Amino acid sequence: MPTLWSDRFAQRTQRMTSSMIRELLKLTEKPDVVSFAGGLPAPEVFPVEEIQAAADKVLRAQGKTALQYAATEGYLPLRELLVRHMGRYGIRAKPANVMITSGSQQGLDLIGKLFINAGDRILTESPTYLGALQAWSAYQADYLTVPIDDAGLDVGRLEAQLRGGPKFLYILPNFQNPAGVTLGLERRRRLVELANHYGAPIVEDDPYGQLRYEGEHLPSLVQIDAEFHGCADGECEFTGNVLYLSTLSKTLAPGLRVAWVVAPESVIKRLVQMKQGADLHSSTFCQMVAYEVAKDGFLDRHVRRIRSVYGERRNAMLQACERHLPQGVSWTKPAGGLFLWLTLPAGVDSTVLLKLALAEERVAFVPGASFFPRGGGERTCRLNFSYSAPDLIDEGIRRLGNVLRRSLVAQG
Amino acid sequence: MPTLWSDRFAQRTQRMTSSMIRELLKLTEKPDVVSFAGGLPAPEVFPVEEIQAAADKVLRAQGKTALQYAATEGYLPLRELLVRHMGRYGIRAKPANVMITSGSQQGLDLIGKLFINAGDRILTESPTYLGALQAWSAYQADYLTVPIDDAGLDVGRLEAQLRGGPKFLYILPNFQNPAGVTLGLERRRRLVELANHYGAPIVEDDPYGQLRYEGEHLPSLVQIDAEFHGCADGECEFTGNVLYLSTLSKTLAPGLRVAWVVAPESVIKRLVQMKQGADLHSSTFCQMVAYEVAKDGFLDRHVRRIRSVYGERRNAMLQACERHLPQGVSWTKPAGGLFLWLTLPAGVDSTVLLKLALAEERVAFVPGASFFPRGGGERTCRLNFSYSAPDLIDEGIRRLGNVLRRSLVAQG
Repeated sequence: MPTLWSDRFAQRTQRMTSSMIRELLKLTEKPDVVSFAGGLPAPEVFPVEEIQAAADKVLRAQGKTALQYAATEGYLPLRELLVRHMGRYGIRAKPANVMITSGSQQGLDLIGKLFINAGDRILTESPTYLGALQAWSAYQADYLTVPIDDAGLDVGRLEAQLRGGPKFLYILPNFQNPAGVTLGLERRRRLVELANHYGAPIVEDDPYGQLRYEGEHLPSLVQIDAEFHGCADGECEFTGNVLYLSTLSKTLAPGLRVAWVVAPESVIKRLVQMKQGADLHSSTFCQMVAYEVAKDGFLDRHVRRIRSVYGERRNAMLQACERHLPQGVSWTKPAGGLFLWLTLPAGVDSTVLLKLALAEERVAFVPGASFFPRGGGERTCRLNFSYSAPDLIDEGIRRLGNVLRRSLVAQG
Repeated sequence: MPTLWSDRFAQRTQRMTSSMIRELLKLTEKPDVVSFAGGLPAPEVFPVEEIQAAADKVLRAQGKTALQYAATEGYLPLRELLVRHMGRYGIRAKPANVMITSGSQQGLDLIGKLFINAGDRILTESPTYLGALQAWSAYQADYLTVPIDDAGLDVGRLEAQLRGGPKFLYILPNFQNPAGVTLGLERRRRLVELANHYGAPIVEDDPYGQLRYEGEHLPSLVQIDAEFHGCADGECEFTGNVLYLSTLSKTLAPGLRVAWVVAPESVIKRLVQMKQGADLHSSTFCQMVAYEVAKDGFLDRHVRRIRSVYGERRNAMLQACERHLPQGVSWTKPAGGLFLWLTLPAGVDSTVLLKLALAEERVAFVPGASFFPRGGGERTCRLNFSYSAPDLIDEGIRRLGNVLRRSLVAQG
C-alpha cells in the first residue's frame, strides 16, 4: 500500500541494499542447518552468571544511576578501565580519548557521519568488513581498494591507491573479517609510513585482536604510528592519526552493545555531538554491568577461556577442510578471530554453491562477493568457526565437501 | 594538536553545534544548584526492584539469548506487547509496523537518514524538540515553522507553510517539549486534513502521551488520520501516513534506551536497513528486561504511580510560579508531561538571565531560544518539573523570582 511516505526516500538510500549478514542470520535459526554464515560468538562461553551477579550488584547499589540518562561519552569508570586494558596491548590513550558506542557498528556509522561527504573515497582492504560498507554507503562513500593475501593488505599495491586521495584508510589488521588474515609487522610499518607520507589518516578496526590462538601479539597501527613519530619505546603518546575501534561483543557478550572508539580529543568532541543526535547515549545499565563484570581482571581471565574454546574450533575447521574438501579448494589459516576464508576452483560461483548447499546438504556460509567494495570475489566464501562445536564443524565441512564435489562433477 | 583528521570533517557537520541539552545536564550534577534544566525523569519512581527481578529472570531463563546478537527490528514479544499497549490508546498497528530503537532519539535520527536530503524543509512547531533539530541538522535539513499557543500548533497559520512543500511535518501533540502545551482535538483534525490535502506526511512524536495529570486522553494523529480515511469507529486500520514515535524512557527508565517507531511495513523495512548500518540492533538484554518488566500489566500500574508523583510536582510548580514570580511573567499550564514554559517581560533575555540565575541564586533552566529552528524565543525559558521534589521546586522558583525581580529593577 502506498502511503504519503512512498517515494520520499532520501537520495543516500538509493544504493542501500538489505544486509546479507542480517538476512543470513535468519538461516542460522533453522535447527537442521549447520551454519557457518553468522559472525556469532559461542553462547556457551558467555559469562552469564558473572553478568547476572554484576547486574544484581549494579541495580542494588546504584539502581537510580544505572536507569537514568547519562553522559554521551560514556560511563567514566568503564572508559578508564578500557584505557588500562588497551595500555596492556601497547595503546596509550586517556579517558578523554575514549567514547563508548552501541557496538563498533555505531563507531563506524558515527565516523562516516563525521567525515564522509558524498563521493569521498575510502581506502579499504578487498575484501573488507561488510558492516563498514553498509554504514558508509549511507553517506555515499566511494571506495579505493587494495587486495589482500595471506599476510593481509598487499602494501606493495597501496601507493597507487593512496595517490587517489582517500579521505581515510580502513584497516582490520588482526584476523580480518572476512578473510581471517593478519597484517604482518613489516607491512604494518610500511602502511603507517605510506599513510603519513600521503597525509591520509587511518581507521583501525580491531574487534578480535585479543582472540589470538597462536603466535605473538603484533603492535597496533596506533602504536606503530606513535613509534613512527619518534616516541621512546613504551612511552609513546597517542598521535591521533589512527582512530581505533574495539568492542566487548567478542570478549564479553554482544547483547550488551558496548564498544568504544579511541580518537584525539578534538575528534571525540565532534563524535560526541554526532552520538548526541544519534541516540543520546548508550545504555547506562549495560555500560555499568560491563564495567562491573570486566573489572578486577575478569575480562583477561575470560579472554583466555574464549581463546581456548575458539582455538579448538579453528583447529577443528582446519582439520575438517583437509579431510573433506576436494582438491582445488584453498583456505586461509587464521591465527585468531572468528573466520576462515575459502577460495573455490575456477568456475564455481559461491552464491550458486550456497543455494545448493542449503537445499541439498543444509549447510550455510557467506558468499564472499558481498565483502568486495568494487566487485569480484565470486569464488570465495566466509566460514565462521566460533559458533559451532568441533563435531558440528566437522559435519558441516563434510556436507560442504559433498556439495562441492557434486558441483565440480556437474561442471565436468 | 592537529592530527591527520583535522579539517577533514564532512560538510554536514558545519552547522552542528554542541547540544545545549547535554551541556546543561552537567549543571544538574552540582549539588547546590536547583536545576529545572534537564528533562530527567525522577529516579525515585524508577521500578528498580522490578527491573532487578526481571534482569535476574531473563539471565537465568534465557541468558544465552539475552547476551547474543539479535534481529535488527527488535525483540518480537516486546513489539507485540507495545502493539497491545498502543491499541489501548487507539493506535492499531501490527508487530510488523514496529521497530525498536535505542531511545526515540535514534528513531528521529533514522527517519532523518531515510528521508532528508540536504535542503529539504521540515515543518515543525516553533518552539520544538531540540533533539530532533540536532538529529536532522546532520542531514542538512531546513525548517518551515508554525508558532504555537496554549492549544498547541496554530493551525490557522499552517496552510501558508504547507505551501512551502515540506518533506514532512514534525508534531509533538501531547504536553509538547519544550512548551508543555497540548494540541486540541479540533486542531488535530484540521492538521490531519490539511496535511492530507497537501500530501505531506507526519512524524508524530509522543514520548509523554501517557503522562496526563488532568483531562481526557486525546486521539493520536495516527488514529485521526485513520478516521479521516473513513474507517469505522474503533476499527481503524493503520494508514501509514503518520509515523509514530514513543518510548519507555519516561514510563520505565531511560537508562535502558528502549523506544519504538511505528511505520508502514515498506518504511519499517528501510528503517531496519538504516538501523543495521547504525548499530545492528538495540541491546538484546535491555529489550528483554523491558519486556519482562512491562508485561502482565505492570507498565500501566506503574504509569499511574508516575502520573500521581509528577502531577503533584506540576501543581507545586504552578503554585510556586503564582507565589514567587513577579508580575509580567506568564507560563503555560501543562496538562501532562515534564515541562512548563515561561515567557518573561519585554527586555529580559533568558540567556542573560540564566547566567545570573546560576551565579547569584544557583538555579538553572533552559533558555528557550535554542528550541526555535528559525530564531526568536529570547524571552522564553523551559522549566522541568519531573525531577525535583515539590519543596525543592518551590525553593527553585523562589530563587528564580529573586533573580527576575533584580533584573527587572536593574532594567528600570
